[in-house]
Amino acid sequence: MAKMKCTVSYDGTYFFGYQVQPGKRTVQGEIETALSRMHHGKPVKITASGRTDSGVHAFGQVFHFESPLNIPEENWSRALNSLLPGDICIRKTETVPDDFHARYSVREKEYRYRLLTRQEPDLFRRLYTWHITRPLDRSKMNQAAGYITGTHDFSCFCAANTSVKDKVRTIYRLEIVDEENSETVIRIAGSGFLYQMVRIITGTLLDVGSEVFPPEHVRTIIEGRDRQAASQTAPACGLTLWRVTY
Amino acid sequence: MAKMKCTVSYDGTYFFGYQVQPGKRTVQGEIETALSRMHHGKPVKITASGRTDSGVHAFGQVFHFESPLNIPEENWSRALNSLLPGDICIRKTETVPDDFHARYSVREKEYRYRLLTRQEPDLFRRLYTWHITRPLDRSKMNQAAGYITGTHDFSCFCAANTSVKDKVRTIYRLEIVDEENSETVIRIAGSGFLYQMVRIITGTLLDVGSEVFPPEHVRTIIEGRDRQAASQTAPACGLTLWRVTY
Repeated sequence: MAKMKCTVSYDGTYFFGYQVQPGKRTVQGEIETALSRMHHGKPVKITASGRTDSGVHAFGQVFHFESPLNIPEENWSRALNSLLPGDICIRKTETVPDDFHARYSVREKEYRYRLLTRQEPDLFRRLYTWHITRPLDRSKMNQAAGYITGTHDFSCFCAANTSVKDKVRTIYRLEIVDEENSETVIRIAGSGFLYQMVRIITGTLLDVGSEVFPPEHVRTIIEGRDRQAASQTAPACGLTLWRVTY
Repeated sequence: MAKMKCTVSYDGTYFFGYQVQPGKRTVQGEIETALSRMHHGKPVKITASGRTDSGVHAFGQVFHFESPLNIPEENWSRALNSLLPGDICIRKTETVPDDFHARYSVREKEYRYRLLTRQEPDLFRRLYTWHITRPLDRSKMNQAAGYITGTHDFSCFCAANTSVKDKVRTIYRLEIVDEENSETVIRIAGSGFLYQMVRIITGTLLDVGSEVFPPEHVRTIIEGRDRQAASQTAPACGLTLWRVTY
């Protein structure tokens, strides 16, 4: 048996999220179906770095699986892509040591949240950005980002319906970057993320940028550990799991 | 009755083209339904600058309609957009003189064909670009573009199944432009276009760029007036009706 690591992109628009759910179209379901076809109908289970929610995209999601097939590394991606739908693309397949684990071996995850920051909407980016027409005070957003960076109990930025007990995570970097074509991108890298954490942080940073509350208030929100104190969850479509580092 | 001119964007992906067809989702059908709702159920017919095929996008398609409603110009777009699906967006609505006609008053139409020219595919642009991995000789493509520019009988660049008799058209400009993020865009402006003309020209320019035949051969293709001599029709997804000028 060889252990394989795959880096995969997907357009989350028409999936009910990453994780298999009976009767729903999911990323894991599509990939496991393709792998099973390569294994003459035998089920093959894949393990990803973590789930992504319904509508969330991935540029560099990672998963592993084990296979008895003797296929050269460079042919795996092509074989899988020929069996996968157009909204999933395997970017790279590598052989990894037996102790590699797509979830437990993660060192860092980076997400990017794309905002379209101009008056006119853009139909062709509607599935990949959140359109914000109000002006944003960038220096206030940067100040708030500073309070979020570091190791904290992030209960305030975690959706209420979760069973995770330990809500301490470390945010290594949180940058707000101007990109081409009127996009403002929130790039956030950390040791791990709670359920809907990036989308709640995005909503909170936008409230700071729109002067709903001052940057210092973000410190109070974090200390209070209360989801109700933070802002609304930003829409899934703007979010992409960008990169997983091992 | 006021005559209104609308500029509209649409993502052609999930439409069976612009023109109404019974039982199919079309751009015209969606817009006429929205207008009819604004007119208390009375049917309202719209007239566009021309059709676009199934899967073809528009940034600046134009249509006109007549209405007895007394709504300020600037409120029309908002009212219509609130009734339209997310893949159609009215960008502008203006009152126009009675003799304006979205089709007969056209002075120039511009189409853009987007090519993704790099090795790696991009999932997030798969619906809006044609992915070309082979190298393209740009100077040969420019030379071929020179033969296409001007007034010609373009029978060679017209899909066979058409009833149009006069196939003489004038191409004012045909430029191949490098844009951001590995895109090469074919911009083509003319007095009017035959059925699938831009997509057949795109296929032909790519064959020149890939050295399937030399640039001079394009002159022979045009003179021969035979569709079979030109190249294959490029896929619809890369094409956008960019602008209509009156």
